[in-house]
Amino acid sequence: MPGEPRVGDVFGELLRDVYAVRSGTGPRPLAGGRLPRPVIEVIERDDGLIYGAPADHYLAEPDEWQPYDHRAVDRARGAVLDIGVGGGRIALELQRRGVAVTGLDVSAGAVEMCRRRGVRDLVLATVDEHAAIGPRYDTFVLLGNNLGLLEGRDRAPAFLAALGALARPGAEIIAQGSDPYRTTDPLHTGYHRANRARGRLGGQLRLRLRYREFGTPWFDYLVCSPEELAELVHGSPWRLTDVDTADAPYYLATLRLAD
Amino acid sequence: MPGEPRVGDVFGELLRDVYAVRSGTGPRPLAGGRLPRPVIEVIERDDGLIYGAPADHYLAEPDEWQPYDHRAVDRARGAVLDIGVGGGRIALELQRRGVAVTGLDVSAGAVEMCRRRGVRDLVLATVDEHAAIGPRYDTFVLLGNNLGLLEGRDRAPAFLAALGALARPGAEIIAQGSDPYRTTDPLHTGYHRANRARGRLGGQLRLRLRYREFGTPWFDYLVCSPEELAELVHGSPWRLTDVDTADAPYYLATLRLAD
Repeated sequence: MPGEPRVGDVFGELLRDVYAVRSGTGPRPLAGGRLPRPVIEVIERDDGLIYGAPADHYLAEPDEWQPYDHRAVDRARGAVLDIGVGGGRIALELQRRGVAVTGLDVSAGAVEMCRRRGVRDLVLATVDEHAAIGPRYDTFVLLGNNLGLLEGRDRAPAFLAALGALARPGAEIIAQGSDPYRTTDPLHTGYHRANRARGRLGGQLRLRLRYREFGTPWFDYLVCSPEELAELVHGSPWRLTDVDTADAPYYLATLRLAD
Repeated sequence: MPGEPRVGDVFGELLRDVYAVRSGTGPRPLAGGRLPRPVIEVIERDDGLIYGAPADHYLAEPDEWQPYDHRAVDRARGAVLDIGVGGGRIALELQRRGVAVTGLDVSAGAVEMCRRRGVRDLVLATVDEHAAIGPRYDTFVLLGNNLGLLEGRDRAPAFLAALGALARPGAEIIAQGSDPYRTTDPLHTGYHRANRARGRLGGQLRLRLRYREFGTPWFDYLVCSPEELAELVHGSPWRLTDVDTADAPYYLATLRLAD
């Protein structure tokens, strides 16, 4: 089977090159050794769909953000856990505002990049591993579509329980998602149908990320409607208290720890 | 095996979306139905390397071209065959200059795109198929790295013979290549070594192109040094008369039909 990637820290490799291009320092990806190349993240879906996306946004400054990111950051209060801290763009802005923020990621390269860029409090772990340590937070932010970490019906209860274990009374989750059902593209509507036929949520994407020679294992990432989110939250330690759809199909969901 | 693409006209699909984005007409690729997405061509190499490249350049206007493309077009004379006409950027400029040009491509979508953009003379065929029909040309242009169509030692003699059969006396081939050996990236130098160990030329890339749900079969595409090109041309109906390296590592090779 030709063309199989090496399993590695795809996201860390990608971030390192985005940083090199943005900052103009270190070895940069070049075409034929001379023309600068944009850094492109490759996303494969298990039905054979492939998508290349410019990765520059991972290190976007606040003036380059989408409006919902600003509204999310405005809502963060108390001790904040930035889940999937990535290149640190959100954590750095929270720090600038004097908010106490901890950045969490499973990518060693992402944590290293955050440290280099000045994020002070960092954890290399899953939410489950971090919950076992025992710290507590007032706000959890899941931005950059990271509501997707709910994965689907199987994983969501454990994920929300882990955040419950990490939560102080009155804590909130502020999560950004996208409604996947606003498309008529048969490539996507057909995928949603096939997912449902297998007992999965329509937008429960099975993906693999690739960059240069590296690829992740296949994993589930959830793109769900606010209605589906409400179902997933039902029975968890959380209540869905607000869905901000001002930038539909993108939305910000607020979940509050049940009393 | 999850993630396998459908075999289809990858290049035609890609061009259609590039055209839609450039012209602002027709269905355009959008993120979540709202934000515009750049069209990205995904290139897989058989060692697992993957590369996403913005595809906008396929429809670039002359003022966006690299300098060597202008020098190539300046050298075309008489009846010209544009091999791998793609989106027609070179053929359209030749037409504007009053040069008689025929565009050849194996992608039905590329030929359709050229027709839509105003290229008048088009052929959907390989060079071998076209040679069997019997037309004759004074200049063959192989731009956009299309020297790569030589593939390697196995294919080059037949490819050069087909162009010989299509050539009028004194005909020239103007082909753009890139020297692959100006890199120290171990990902590439290791690939070159592994290729040579299998009896292939170092830069004889085994590739597959992907866009959305479509992929090409795996094929060979040659990136070679001017010295390797000289070897491949030896014994063919052609003589290598000039290598213009003003934009190294990119170069323009001129081959002239032997008397």
